[in-house]
Amino acid sequence: MSRMLVLTEAELRRIVRLDLSAIDCIEQAFAALATRPVAMPPILRLDIPEHRGEVDVKTAYVPGFGGFAIKVSPGFFDNPRLGLPSLNGLMILFSARTGLVEALLLDNGYLTDVRTAAAGAVAARHLARPDAAVAAIFGAGMQARLQLEALALVRPLREARIWARDPRKANEAARELSRKLGFAVAAVADPQAAMRGADVIVTTTPAERPILMADWLEPGQHVTAMGSDSEHKNEVDPAAFARVTYVTDRLSQTRRLGELASAIRAGLAAADQVFAELGEVIAGKRPGRRSSDEITLADLTGTGVQDTAIANLAAARARTAGAGQTIDTKAEAGDAA
Amino acid sequence: MSRMLVLTEAELRRIVRLDLSAIDCIEQAFAALATRPVAMPPILRLDIPEHRGEVDVKTAYVPGFGGFAIKVSPGFFDNPRLGLPSLNGLMILFSARTGLVEALLLDNGYLTDVRTAAAGAVAARHLARPDAAVAAIFGAGMQARLQLEALALVRPLREARIWARDPRKANEAARELSRKLGFAVAAVADPQAAMRGADVIVTTTPAERPILMADWLEPGQHVTAMGSDSEHKNEVDPAAFARVTYVTDRLSQTRRLGELASAIRAGLAAADQVFAELGEVIAGKRPGRRSSDEITLADLTGTGVQDTAIANLAAARARTAGAGQTIDTKAEAGDAA
Repeated sequence: MSRMLVLTEAELRRIVRLDLSAIDCIEQAFAALATRPVAMPPILRLDIPEHRGEVDVKTAYVPGFGGFAIKVSPGFFDNPRLGLPSLNGLMILFSARTGLVEALLLDNGYLTDVRTAAAGAVAARHLARPDAAVAAIFGAGMQARLQLEALALVRPLREARIWARDPRKANEAARELSRKLGFAVAAVADPQAAMRGADVIVTTTPAERPILMADWLEPGQHVTAMGSDSEHKNEVDPAAFARVTYVTDRLSQTRRLGELASAIRAGLAAADQVFAELGEVIAGKRPGRRSSDEITLADLTGTGVQDTAIANLAAARARTAGAGQTIDTKAEAGDAA
Repeated sequence: MSRMLVLTEAELRRIVRLDLSAIDCIEQAFAALATRPVAMPPILRLDIPEHRGEVDVKTAYVPGFGGFAIKVSPGFFDNPRLGLPSLNGLMILFSARTGLVEALLLDNGYLTDVRTAAAGAVAARHLARPDAAVAAIFGAGMQARLQLEALALVRPLREARIWARDPRKANEAARELSRKLGFAVAAVADPQAAMRGADVIVTTTPAERPILMADWLEPGQHVTAMGSDSEHKNEVDPAAFARVTYVTDRLSQTRRLGELASAIRAGLAAADQVFAELGEVIAGKRPGRRSSDEITLADLTGTGVQDTAIANLAAARARTAGAGQTIDTKAEAGDAA
């Protein structure tokens, strides 16, 4: 118990992949959120304006998981001038029984990428039609790619379209994903055209005004909006709330940060209106999709339970694989200040 | 920049000691708190009632220090049954310029012990009479010992008394400290007798009702109260506020958690009353002791700037000494999910 495992990003990339077991792990975390007394305190935030830096610290305790993770996510936006990435970060896994540190996961945000994409797959698994074959992705960044890869693990996709503000980036992502996934992925210049006939749509942008309009929606479609994670972001036209069955990752959070926040501001949803959480749908406590004509919208803003779940998975995998370095954390006897 | 230093408790005990440079380091942190735009967000707290566990996460950015620390302090009160200490914890030092992790300090609370004792010495340096020769310590735990050691570094002590609820513990601490410090340290059964003629008094207990009464105070004494760090703790009789010059480590914090909180509740201080902070006294912005007859009271509840300061000191010392293990935190090229 006095040994700590240290895993670098390279090691974590080898042992934790965006696969069905990562998706199952995140599904289990959402179910726990709906069925067990999870503790998830508000985010701690430190600002360092001199260096355009901001640091978020998140944590959650999920009964049933052996450890709880504390995730530190620094964003330093002058870093590119120094040849460094803006985003970094790590997770620390502590024993939920003793509080002793078990593992240090130097993932530089990789595990967050995986748990975020896995949540998109969980939403599709419970809300998209089982026969969903055509996907449309808004955005062309890392999450756009990972969300499509995750979807392909849970639905029988045979075609995908990518729309992004920058057509060159959309082309590049489409080319890469076609090669990687083995089905046709095309860049589409018009977002409405990208959505036409699609079964699943995932929005992954930092948009501050809607990029997906309510009257573009077609019966039977499922939309996952995962771009918004702060007060001023908004991807989906609030008018869509009149047409969709809305499911949130965490109601108290999407009221402040998600697509729901924009709908409340627009007067199209009530501030105290109760919507199903994804975990409640997984646990069978609330219905998800009820018919093949229904339009569903999953609003994902990211939760600490996902971090705790993926950190437990990473540490368990590392132990099995014998990966990482082990450090003795115990002081030598007789040593004194 | 892609290398992280890992230091165990044993290594940290070797390179960071409770000495004048640690005291100077903490003094500098308090001065910064009074003179620079320090960022110190509220504590993040996670509770794990199933295992009687609680976790505090503290941080502070202090301009002028190269790194900022995030300190994680778990307390799991069923641990003794498992043969483990209740308190553990670590600090992570990040570059304040880039947000990259620089050092992991697996100190199990040792650095907190040092920075807490050092703050007592800083208070005595600025508030106790320069000729203070007799000390009285209330409590017989780790901080009781360290506070007396720290005092002996800044004032010409030639005698000390220890009072504790448990006389055996007081005896044991007195015996140990006599041997270690080279002057007479005696256990005293009556707290009032322990204070009589003392020049400096330090209270280090978790008392929830006053253990130091106002009418025991004598002209010229200095008291440091460092036991209270939560709403329900109280070491000093609130009536003392009518007789002392009160100095706080952080006014907003002692109004909630310190001796000041008890005085406000008792109606003996106003909730919005302004008192000098220790950093302001150090920086010369407010007076400390003005005469040899004055009675001074320093109320220390612990601040994130102390953690950031001691973590920077530890990392700098380790680099100079070549101590600790270095871990490459960078992913290997070509590795992908």
